[in-house]
Amino acid sequence: MRLLVVNSNTTESVTARIDLAAKAAASPGTAVQTVSAPFGLPLIVSRADWLVAGPATLAALAARRGQYDAAVIACFGDPGLDAAKELLDVPVLGISEAAFHAASMLGRRFGVVSFTAALRPMFEDCLAHHGLAARCAGFRMGPAFAGDPGLVAEQRAELLVDLCRQSVEQDGAEAVILAGGPLAGLAPVIADRVPVPLVDGTAAAVRMAEALVGLAPPGAPRPKRDRALTGFAGEIAALYAAP
Amino acid sequence: MRLLVVNSNTTESVTARIDLAAKAAASPGTAVQTVSAPFGLPLIVSRADWLVAGPATLAALAARRGQYDAAVIACFGDPGLDAAKELLDVPVLGISEAAFHAASMLGRRFGVVSFTAALRPMFEDCLAHHGLAARCAGFRMGPAFAGDPGLVAEQRAELLVDLCRQSVEQDGAEAVILAGGPLAGLAPVIADRVPVPLVDGTAAAVRMAEALVGLAPPGAPRPKRDRALTGFAGEIAALYAAP
Amino acid sequence: MRLLVVNSNTTESVTARIDLAAKAAASPGTAVQTVSAPFGLPLIVSRADWLVAGPATLAALAARRGQYDAAVIACFGDPGLDAAKELLDVPVLGISEAAFHAASMLGRRFGVVSFTAALRPMFEDCLAHHGLAARCAGFRMGPAFAGDPGLVAEQRAELLVDLCRQSVEQDGAEAVILAGGPLAGLAPVIADRVPVPLVDGTAAAVRMAEALVGLAPPGAPRPKRDRALTGFAGEIAALYAAP
Amino acid sequence: MRLLVVNSNTTESVTARIDLAAKAAASPGTAVQTVSAPFGLPLIVSRADWLVAGPATLAALAARRGQYDAAVIACFGDPGLDAAKELLDVPVLGISEAAFHAASMLGRRFGVVSFTAALRPMFEDCLAHHGLAARCAGFRMGPAFAGDPGLVAEQRAELLVDLCRQSVEQDGAEAVILAGGPLAGLAPVIADRVPVPLVDGTAAAVRMAEALVGLAPPGAPRPKRDRALTGFAGEIAALYAAP
Amino acid sequence: MRLLVVNSNTTESVTARIDLAAKAAASPGTAVQTVSAPFGLPLIVSRADWLVAGPATLAALAARRGQYDAAVIACFGDPGLDAAKELLDVPVLGISEAAFHAASMLGRRFGVVSFTAALRPMFEDCLAHHGLAARCAGFRMGPAFAGDPGLVAEQRAELLVDLCRQSVEQDGAEAVILAGGPLAGLAPVIADRVPVPLVDGTAAAVRMAEALVGLAPPGAPRPKRDRALTGFAGEIAALYAAP
Amino acid sequence: MRLLVVNSNTTESVTARIDLAAKAAASPGTAVQTVSAPFGLPLIVSRADWLVAGPATLAALAARRGQYDAAVIACFGDPGLDAAKELLDVPVLGISEAAFHAASMLGRRFGVVSFTAALRPMFEDCLAHHGLAARCAGFRMGPAFAGDPGLVAEQRAELLVDLCRQSVEQDGAEAVILAGGPLAGLAPVIADRVPVPLVDGTAAAVRMAEALVGLAPPGAPRPKRDRALTGFAGEIAALYAAP
Repeated sequence: MRLLVVNSNTTESVTARIDLAAKAAASPGTAVQTVSAPFGLPLIVSRADWLVAGPATLAALAARRGQYDAAVIACFGDPGLDAAKELLDVPVLGISEAAFHAASMLGRRFGVVSFTAALRPMFEDCLAHHGLAARCAGFRMGPAFAGDPGLVAEQRAELLVDLCRQSVEQDGAEAVILAGGPLAGLAPVIADRVPVPLVDGTAAAVRMAEALVGLAPPGAPRPKRDRALTGFAGEIAALYAAP
Repeated sequence: MRLLVVNSNTTESVTARIDLAAKAAASPGTAVQTVSAPFGLPLIVSRADWLVAGPATLAALAARRGQYDAAVIACFGDPGLDAAKELLDVPVLGISEAAFHAASMLGRRFGVVSFTAALRPMFEDCLAHHGLAARCAGFRMGPAFAGDPGLVAEQRAELLVDLCRQSVEQDGAEAVILAGGPLAGLAPVIADRVPVPLVDGTAAAVRMAEALVGLAPPGAPRPKRDRALTGFAGEIAALYAAP
Repeated sequence: MRLLVVNSNTTESVTARIDLAAKAAASPGTAVQTVSAPFGLPLIVSRADWLVAGPATLAALAARRGQYDAAVIACFGDPGLDAAKELLDVPVLGISEAAFHAASMLGRRFGVVSFTAALRPMFEDCLAHHGLAARCAGFRMGPAFAGDPGLVAEQRAELLVDLCRQSVEQDGAEAVILAGGPLAGLAPVIADRVPVPLVDGTAAAVRMAEALVGLAPPGAPRPKRDRALTGFAGEIAALYAAP
Repeated sequence: MRLLVVNSNTTESVTARIDLAAKAAASPGTAVQTVSAPFGLPLIVSRADWLVAGPATLAALAARRGQYDAAVIACFGDPGLDAAKELLDVPVLGISEAAFHAASMLGRRFGVVSFTAALRPMFEDCLAHHGLAARCAGFRMGPAFAGDPGLVAEQRAELLVDLCRQSVEQDGAEAVILAGGPLAGLAPVIADRVPVPLVDGTAAAVRMAEALVGLAPPGAPRPKRDRALTGFAGEIAALYAAP
Repeated sequence: MRLLVVNSNTTESVTARIDLAAKAAASPGTAVQTVSAPFGLPLIVSRADWLVAGPATLAALAARRGQYDAAVIACFGDPGLDAAKELLDVPVLGISEAAFHAASMLGRRFGVVSFTAALRPMFEDCLAHHGLAARCAGFRMGPAFAGDPGLVAEQRAELLVDLCRQSVEQDGAEAVILAGGPLAGLAPVIADRVPVPLVDGTAAAVRMAEALVGLAPPGAPRPKRDRALTGFAGEIAALYAAP
Repeated sequence: MRLLVVNSNTTESVTARIDLAAKAAASPGTAVQTVSAPFGLPLIVSRADWLVAGPATLAALAARRGQYDAAVIACFGDPGLDAAKELLDVPVLGISEAAFHAASMLGRRFGVVSFTAALRPMFEDCLAHHGLAARCAGFRMGPAFAGDPGLVAEQRAELLVDLCRQSVEQDGAEAVILAGGPLAGLAPVIADRVPVPLVDGTAAAVRMAEALVGLAPPGAPRPKRDRALTGFAGEIAALYAAP
């Protein structure tokens, strides 16, 4: 199985981190390719960032169309996810979507932990969008962050362990999601210091994508509208045109 | 007061219709300017359409920055709304957002009526996003539509009257929203045939924008991040850079 | 446009404060008249108070029937609101209703701040009734209060600033409602000390009332039941009789 | 135990019907007294009716203060209920409140059946207020009604049986509430024609009131505010004054 | 009336405590018999415990079939409740179910207090199952407990008073449920130290059971499936066989 | 990877059907073993059935403890699921749980289709328990069924196709779950006649189980209580004892 993983931001050090986490989670028969968004922002933090990350993500997906059996959008807010699901003929998963569903299957209530409070509004919207707010025990976020997102996982590891423990002890979380692309790969490093399963969104999405490929036949074909999209790169426009 | 109204699609006949509806609703002291999205799609129907309509809408807003005191996004799904609220220093309203809130103040349960069922998924997501699903008595939508969106209001007027009445009589709606940019201006034409208030999203948004300008001082200034956005038109990128 | 504002309690100093806030918020063409409830209680604090404030508010509305184009019920719990909407042919808005809707358009999550915890049960019921609980980030209330409600805004200004900041910093509010008729007019005084928009219910209701007048034609006329109400003042009974 | 049952409307034939149903449901040791509201409306149908029925109900409760160990508000919308709970030192129950709770204990989903659709908006608000909407399988209501409310139970008995069966077969109700004061006493008459338990609000409230008397000690005494209520009958004002 | 009360665990000291509380709450005409589960666990704490407590409870109910007019499952999680309601021809109530409904009628928001945090996940599931989460002001639980459940009520009485007060003062509870079979009978002992009604689940269930007996005729008879249950005691299997 | 699949009922023809579906869905490296419940009922239809199916399922899981890396409970109601998650050290998934989550990732709203309406109450409870009711577009169920559950998939295939289409066309489902163990394996047979993905619970659970094994380290070890369970088979009791 060929899996395309798209980091929705343009920071290569984060893409490298995501690539490692994705490959560590993938099954033997899965070939993982991880790419950065071809344009956009170095870090996706707010709702405004989320907006422009959508087409940037779609561009990466469109450029490699036909070269993968499933795709993962590796940005914890799932920019472009609904459009990609609609436009592509293969399963597409967001890392927050996958994390919420996986955590729900691992514990009755899950906590969400991340490195900076600035991400909370985007995460809350994303959680509500996926309809699993009732399964969430609460958010625990670190303070404002202005450094290199590719290094924050190590720099704030101790803080994140503390936040995970608070989520378990004070909020009653039975699983904890380490949220945010820049935290990809941290879960196994700190897992033995937290008494519940730690869910890494990237790993969860890789596994869920493997699970969904071939699971449900897409059903009888439906006619597609032919739409003339202007102002976006040709490969994005091609997604909107009739096949 | 200067009000910019952005039609998020590129169909000039719809823009003209929105412009008429907006000017008819505006108070004497309000100068309305209505523009089309500078690029994108001729009609916004699905979640995928909604994605690309966001930056297209933002581009229209960015190009005229500083020339308006409030803005309305005239596409019933509110593409780009959250980003625009975050990036701009003036009130920005979506026509669905305004319609949901206005209808809630005019009746305890509101119905949503539109010309084609294809719009329902996008509308449902939008309603859930604004948190007012509990106030909605239900959706009543017409069949698939493939004609000129600038003419659909007249072509399907009789059908829309029927759907409005069903919403009142069978769903218990105490107000009905005529949803979708292409229906701008239809409400006053058919109002005397429906026994509850008919809410036009464009008109509601114009009035709500007038109401919000100056209502709540924006509060103490907050520091803004400086972000280097690539791959989008210069005026959009300028919105993301520090002031 | 003629706007009647009814203070649902009998305290003239609060009515004067509401009158100032309403006139400050009104557009040039709006003539504001503010009156006290003709009977009832000096302060509306609890659910029991809310009950008797309903007919008292209705009496004020009924006594001036035909003399206004819209009305505002200036008591943060909206006593008598649903009945007034049903009985009168003009838009009627409650200040809590208007504040909840306006705050929802100004920020994704709003906080509610008021001077005394005694108001919280009534406010919570009111918020739930309007269906916007999911948009509320939480309540922050001061301690018990036994002084002159006409002076509490000044006496507790510092406390209220602190509560607003807690709402923003700890609860994630993106707008804050200063709740309760006695706080009318406080928002502009403390706005520069709080980093999000401050919503004054009275000002919001005045603006929303202006927005709704003429927005949606009331629809085809419906037959009215003729009901013989006894035990209430003649003008209230007249509202229930057939036209 | 002395139980006061208040019919919130002024129609004596309905009061008589309620009295019969209440006495049939009461345990041997319970002395039931049923009274009409001393003023107000002959039938409580809409939200506006509900408003004035509140003080009318309170007047009946206040006039007999000290003469009962518990009280029931026998109007399916529970006018005045929250105020009565706050002001009186004995348990007060509404017949809709009691019906919703009793039906929830008798079946996982309950249907609500009544004689006229005009009652639905008031019932929906009441259901939402009590927080049990998720337990409700739906409403089934008859058409508009303009006759004697004291006779409607017999006149529409066949229709009501049909509606009950639809509630069971089409909505999945496992218990059905016969809603509305005028239907008091109908349940045992038609029970053998409906395959699930039929809940009569009056009977449920009588039984629940018996259950709650003495169940939970009211707790340590709390100080009461002394409030000077004007414009209402002296016995109502006395409820608001300090003891 | 004959009432069977089943303690779902096997600890006789808890059964004795429940028996005292049940008899203290019962009306003069009610004959209470309290029994332990014939097998199972000495204390029901977790979701896994709840599973096996279900058939154990059913066994106790089945063994005495025909000897009671109503039954109470005296374990705060209501193991076996839905099955018992389905299989038996008499009303069956759980003590948590009864406590949630009774508390909702005594106060608008209720708190839940218990002796050990280990019970919270089971209680939360139970509250959600009964659909009354919106009426709950929050949980306040003591630390881990490893002693004799028959003595914990006395040993932790001071702690429980503190938790009740926190529920009232910090969470806004207007009634407090003392949750867990081992706390049966504690409410009257500490009631004068907490300023809101204290609800004892056992007492509430006894009273609610008395209220429901005969309240709603069970309706027209429905055909029963004949099912051959193996692997459980004969009296349980008999419940599943056709009558 | 070794996967144990437990059919919670005792009908071998259903177990055989589940086994085929599970093996068809499993990845090459997964060794599937499917077993029937060692005791219990031939078909799990109601809430009462669900109760006894829990320990029966647990018995099957306990008897093979240590012989599998993950387990699936193949009964659409997930009997025993929460207990199994708590007691076992490997991932355990229910087929309804897996179907709800997988369908949510394949479409924004999913429909639930099954062969008999008798299953609806159990399914609704299960859906609510997993917190995904907001993602469900509705239920479509066939009439009462009294035949061999091992043959119903073929006997009612045409009906089920119709119900799936109604779910898509009338309810707006974007994915449809074929619910109930007896429908295992039907999805691929009818997929080309329904225009959205068809989710088979057994297949979904097999894939989700593969995805979760090794995904999230279980975290730091927690002390386990030692509990003496009586009245159940020794292997079940062993699950409750300390390790």
